[in-house]
Amino acid sequence: MPALQPTRVLDDLRELDRLTGGPGGARRVAWTAGWQAARVLLEERVAAIGLALERDAAGNAWAVLPGRRAETVVVGSHLDSVPSGGPLDGALGVFAALELLRTLAEAGTVPERSVALVDWADEEGARFGRSLLGSSAAAGTLDAAAVRGLSDADGVLLEDALAAHGVALDTAVAEAPRRLRDLCAYLELHIEQGPLLEAEGLPVAAVSGTVGIERVRLTFVGRSQHAGPTPMEHRRDAALAAAETALAVEQIAARNDGRGTTGRLRLEPGVATVVAGRAELDVDLRHAQAGRLAEMREQALDAARAAAAGRGCSVTDEEVWRVAPRRFDAGLVEAARAVCAAVGGRELPLVSGALHDAAEVALRVPAAMLFCPSRGGVSHAPDEATDEADLCVAVEVFGRLAVEVVGGAHVPARVAPSRTGEGAGHPRPQHAAVCEQEEW
Amino acid sequence: MPALQPTRVLDDLRELDRLTGGPGGARRVAWTAGWQAARVLLEERVAAIGLALERDAAGNAWAVLPGRRAETVVVGSHLDSVPSGGPLDGALGVFAALELLRTLAEAGTVPERSVALVDWADEEGARFGRSLLGSSAAAGTLDAAAVRGLSDADGVLLEDALAAHGVALDTAVAEAPRRLRDLCAYLELHIEQGPLLEAEGLPVAAVSGTVGIERVRLTFVGRSQHAGPTPMEHRRDAALAAAETALAVEQIAARNDGRGTTGRLRLEPGVATVVAGRAELDVDLRHAQAGRLAEMREQALDAARAAAAGRGCSVTDEEVWRVAPRRFDAGLVEAARAVCAAVGGRELPLVSGALHDAAEVALRVPAAMLFCPSRGGVSHAPDEATDEADLCVAVEVFGRLAVEVVGGAHVPARVAPSRTGEGAGHPRPQHAAVCEQEEW
Repeated sequence: MPALQPTRVLDDLRELDRLTGGPGGARRVAWTAGWQAARVLLEERVAAIGLALERDAAGNAWAVLPGRRAETVVVGSHLDSVPSGGPLDGALGVFAALELLRTLAEAGTVPERSVALVDWADEEGARFGRSLLGSSAAAGTLDAAAVRGLSDADGVLLEDALAAHGVALDTAVAEAPRRLRDLCAYLELHIEQGPLLEAEGLPVAAVSGTVGIERVRLTFVGRSQHAGPTPMEHRRDAALAAAETALAVEQIAARNDGRGTTGRLRLEPGVATVVAGRAELDVDLRHAQAGRLAEMREQALDAARAAAAGRGCSVTDEEVWRVAPRRFDAGLVEAARAVCAAVGGRELPLVSGALHDAAEVALRVPAAMLFCPSRGGVSHAPDEATDEADLCVAVEVFGRLAVEVVGGAHVPARVAPSRTGEGAGHPRPQHAAVCEQEEW
Repeated sequence: MPALQPTRVLDDLRELDRLTGGPGGARRVAWTAGWQAARVLLEERVAAIGLALERDAAGNAWAVLPGRRAETVVVGSHLDSVPSGGPLDGALGVFAALELLRTLAEAGTVPERSVALVDWADEEGARFGRSLLGSSAAAGTLDAAAVRGLSDADGVLLEDALAAHGVALDTAVAEAPRRLRDLCAYLELHIEQGPLLEAEGLPVAAVSGTVGIERVRLTFVGRSQHAGPTPMEHRRDAALAAAETALAVEQIAARNDGRGTTGRLRLEPGVATVVAGRAELDVDLRHAQAGRLAEMREQALDAARAAAAGRGCSVTDEEVWRVAPRRFDAGLVEAARAVCAAVGGRELPLVSGALHDAAEVALRVPAAMLFCPSRGGVSHAPDEATDEADLCVAVEVFGRLAVEVVGGAHVPARVAPSRTGEGAGHPRPQHAAVCEQEEW
């Protein structure tokens, strides 16, 4: 059974950093020249093992190593980054996937199942605000009408930026889902982007799913008043209603064992000498269990209404975004957990607090993820890092799990697709189940 | 004894509003065309009573009606407004002063003391951020070096904007103080810009001084962290440290019977999905008593340090601005109080929570102010308004007080200035005393 060579992954990541990194961080925002440069490097590495890197209708890049069966195990992540991002977010998973293909190709034997590397397009949504663009197109959840009007900070339309990279939005939505038809499993290695594994001193963990998210914009309206002549008891201070709500959201998250963040607050008029007449507070709530998440949302809205009423302000809420918790495939997660535990990794799976392409893919195909530690919990920043020893363990675990699945284990053999098409995929609900009972 | 005709003041204010107001509010920001248009109107009105409007080195506009003595009672306020301001802030005091000159001129007798109208330049500081520009130049408290580098939102330098209106900054600082040498009293009628008189149902009140102000910028530094993967107990949330501090400032102000406002808060990176790693909170504290104001500042800094420490954040403080409480002339304030009380106005003087040109003038000359109500406490907004009946009472009271002072009452006759100059003014400390004992 071939084993991956983690140091080759480290070498590839160093070369990527040399080409697209630097003191200011990673420069691989999707649909930009830096991102293209990263893909050219990947294309060269894929060519070096005798394969071709092809793009689907949504701009996702694929490299396929045919096996004895048509059913395909897909491994990968994303090369795009946020502006001033880190060297590992996404890139680790892509180059670990490359190393799997390289190892299998070098072994010289045809694997049982076919294997494909994927580099999803625009996971971050950093330029146009729509995350998971390529993977959601493939999963059939991308609504072209909802994203067509998005523009970047310079006013460039998403649709035009995609066209400049050969991607037509309508074609992407129509054709990208075909790629998922032959797939039987999806595996993704990623950095945790949080502090848990580092705190536990563990090199790797299985991931059982992604949290649900409720993002609500609260608008408090009070009255703009002069800071000098207005006695405290005559004020209707929208900023203080928002401040009370932000602190309440923290308590609600802690009480529910979830997460609650209020990182965006805009005051109007926003000057030192005027009581704020208007305050916009974004509340981001996360929980692994849909029921608890819904309760957190109600509690946060109640707290906002109480804070507003106590200060003679009004408050309205507007849904910014919501996504249900998603659970990965039970059999794959258990296999990942066992491989982690066997090498001194985490005994139990984690739930991911961030979304990943795997959450989209899991709607259609049995999926699982692996996390390795993030030093200081830092991500989306130039100092994003993981100890090399931990990276090596994580790549090794990823390889061991992938080789098992490629060999035929952990997921059932797939029914051969009918020639005419769409109907032959895995039964969806099994993989998209909301994790009501999951421990978080 | 001549009496002012308040309806003529209302007519002048209506004409001003027609020329420089409208649905979007007053357009009389200093050093702009709208402000110039307002001054042209004033110049026409002054010319109509046979006087000339002259400008001093700092751009303040003066019209003098000579009396039998050289010592001069000055009345006035400012024609400049904030952007989208109201029709009364400043303009009421200028046109009430004009009505005094008009009434005295029409009476045909030479008044005992000389009378001067003044329209101070740039009270609001709306364009360059430096309030009380013209009156502080006259009072000798303007530091040219400190304002030379100020620029507006378009990058235009204060120095260049002043030069375009014929004002050279260094000359203004050197020469404007001369104007105050012959003055024996300063009286200013203004709207309250707060809700107290309206709440009490009173048309007018004497003002005994202006509060002291401490304005401090607090910068909290925590750590920017991903909203999803970061558990609540691992966070160092600078936004929540600022929110706690803002709520504490409110309590501190209420407990000390002062005022505390936190209308400006900037979060970084300021997005919904990231715990804020940095938060800038401006704290504006006001109190009539210098000792209590200093205590409030210490309490606010203590609260900020406690909030930061409780969240693993650091906090630094930077002084943005400070001004001591200023007390108007005891004799003039008592005279103003008595005239107010005689017509059903407030029995006791108010302390102004906002600064006014009178606070600068009071450093050199016996001064007092009168306030009339602001409907809903609203100011610096297009819907700034005062009931006409209240405006008429206030103008009448202002006229009665001014006529008394012009006739020789309430302030001692002034020592004639020596021909060589500067030393002959009123003893300063008497009028600049910090009001430690004043009831607020």
